[in-house]
Amino acid sequence: MTSFQSKLVSRLSPYVPGEQRHGADVVKLNTNENPYPPSPQVMQAIANIEGDDLRRYPDPEASALCKALADYEGVESNQVYVANGSDETLGLAFMAFFTDKAALQFPNISYSFYPVYCKLFDIQASPVALNPDFSLDVNAFTDDAGGICFPNPNAPTGLSLPLTDIEQLLQRYTQGVVLVDEAYSDFGAESAISLIDKYPNLLVTRTFSKGRSLAGMRVGAAFGNVELIRATAAVKNSFNSYPLDAVAQSAAIASLADEAYFQNCKQKIIHTRNTLANALQSRGFTVLDSSANFIFVSPKSVPIDAKTLYEGLNNLNVLVRYWPKDPIQDWLRISIGTDEEITLLLNAIDQVVTEHG
Amino acid sequence: MTSFQSKLVSRLSPYVPGEQRHGADVVKLNTNENPYPPSPQVMQAIANIEGDDLRRYPDPEASALCKALADYEGVESNQVYVANGSDETLGLAFMAFFTDKAALQFPNISYSFYPVYCKLFDIQASPVALNPDFSLDVNAFTDDAGGICFPNPNAPTGLSLPLTDIEQLLQRYTQGVVLVDEAYSDFGAESAISLIDKYPNLLVTRTFSKGRSLAGMRVGAAFGNVELIRATAAVKNSFNSYPLDAVAQSAAIASLADEAYFQNCKQKIIHTRNTLANALQSRGFTVLDSSANFIFVSPKSVPIDAKTLYEGLNNLNVLVRYWPKDPIQDWLRISIGTDEEITLLLNAIDQVVTEHG
Repeated sequence: MTSFQSKLVSRLSPYVPGEQRHGADVVKLNTNENPYPPSPQVMQAIANIEGDDLRRYPDPEASALCKALADYEGVESNQVYVANGSDETLGLAFMAFFTDKAALQFPNISYSFYPVYCKLFDIQASPVALNPDFSLDVNAFTDDAGGICFPNPNAPTGLSLPLTDIEQLLQRYTQGVVLVDEAYSDFGAESAISLIDKYPNLLVTRTFSKGRSLAGMRVGAAFGNVELIRATAAVKNSFNSYPLDAVAQSAAIASLADEAYFQNCKQKIIHTRNTLANALQSRGFTVLDSSANFIFVSPKSVPIDAKTLYEGLNNLNVLVRYWPKDPIQDWLRISIGTDEEITLLLNAIDQVVTEHG
Repeated sequence: MTSFQSKLVSRLSPYVPGEQRHGADVVKLNTNENPYPPSPQVMQAIANIEGDDLRRYPDPEASALCKALADYEGVESNQVYVANGSDETLGLAFMAFFTDKAALQFPNISYSFYPVYCKLFDIQASPVALNPDFSLDVNAFTDDAGGICFPNPNAPTGLSLPLTDIEQLLQRYTQGVVLVDEAYSDFGAESAISLIDKYPNLLVTRTFSKGRSLAGMRVGAAFGNVELIRATAAVKNSFNSYPLDAVAQSAAIASLADEAYFQNCKQKIIHTRNTLANALQSRGFTVLDSSANFIFVSPKSVPIDAKTLYEGLNNLNVLVRYWPKDPIQDWLRISIGTDEEITLLLNAIDQVVTEHG
């Protein structure tokens, strides 16, 4: 610790991303990466980048990308902003809309970056308990909230809310922003983007990292009322005018243009997710009903606990995600890989259970 | 304005970047972009990116790039951090080290993002006057400062401080961080990186945007004591774990590997800068002694004022930068382009002066 750091630094609890171990023998199912590469059109767009695109500053507004996103989702360009990954997209929104005056409410089991932002930006936080079955009841959010934020589908549970529940919340809660984090919505949840014209306090965030296989490229987007977008732009232009580089803008536009490839990858992942869920259920695991590219499972009727299984898999170079905290200390989050990776995972699970069970 | 925005948004004065007008007939000398493309090795590194590099998250620590930067500058890897452009690099440092308790001091004529960050992060700001000739006297910074920040060379003046002046300041000022912003140091200023082992409160920021022709790629770096780097990493990991995408990391590493290309571009720009300075002086302009890839000039002995000249050039699609504020309202900042662009600029200046003079 340095005596030069601001008080802010002392209060931080930085986010810890999943381990990035690589290698031919590593089965990496711990960070919800897409097992399939991006569209060939994306690779072509990157190969087509010229020196002039790099020596110049990129378009600070990423206008072409915002237009492509708006067209894709059926909204207007001024209802969209983009940033360096979903994390920066969320970070800018937290700065723009949430404060220390009234508590931001979010599920107590959820994306662990939300409380990290609250500490960074001095935002009052009030986690809201999930139901015992890990489902989210929108009635748990109260009208005096300074803002409401939740992922749909939720992470790490994978459970999704129907759009009717979200609209019911928006009809009742009008005093702050409702931020729906749709990082994983490509894999089955109903998007709330269709509601942004109707509810001026609704902001929906998305990412190119999961469904579009561009985690390495850092592109996030948000959709909302033009005034919400304008407020966020003011924050962005007070922090970093150019968060999205020229290559990322081109790659993201190319990804949106190849709908057939996107749908094909998505269907393969959903198919593998169902295969994996069935295989684990038949082994005695409890498996939550996932709308995401991961599943949340507990070895409840298997003679092993989640922590031992996690460590055993880790020793076999099979990486999944485990959090040693109540009430999810007997659960594992497993990203959906290829069918081959899932076979390797199941073999490894059988081996660890046999050895430790 | 939306009623949902935080108070923070109301107090912001977002940065306004230089206009990004493009076209075959536009002579763009307004944003200090490098007129030469990046090294062919950079283009090759980008073409070599594979789908697996993109579907996976990038290395959150950008370890290979930090190692390459450390080796290049003769420091240790844990004395370096990188971020999404120099702006994010600075933004993270402002959050980590400056507060509302004691005023951050920076030159009153300087990079206009510093006061923008102060508003965003609620940092007390105390601009320090330059000398009448626009030179910076380090004795103007006082010992009760909460921190000190200045570009070297300064922008938009282009004037640089000798390293002895910076060391004199560091010997005297020990209570806060001294941030030396070396965005333009590739073009002639002495770097303070050589002092980071000696002064634990020294942080030096750099960019790949100017000297390395990678403005479109968004790569910034900072060098300092390992404890300063650690504090900044805590802020970074509380905001965005992955600010640098996989392509940007590869491109930056490739740029550092091609020293001959870098030196050649740099020498061409310095040569063109000298040619332009002489040509303008012979026309009666006052030209400050630049160590940057731009020059700061005033038409003092030319029968035209800077604003009229700026507008006349703009109408001819020759873009330079002008700020209508005291005491630089009769000055223009002109980026160094190719020799051909400089000839077009000089012809345009002669035309505007003839028409309006």
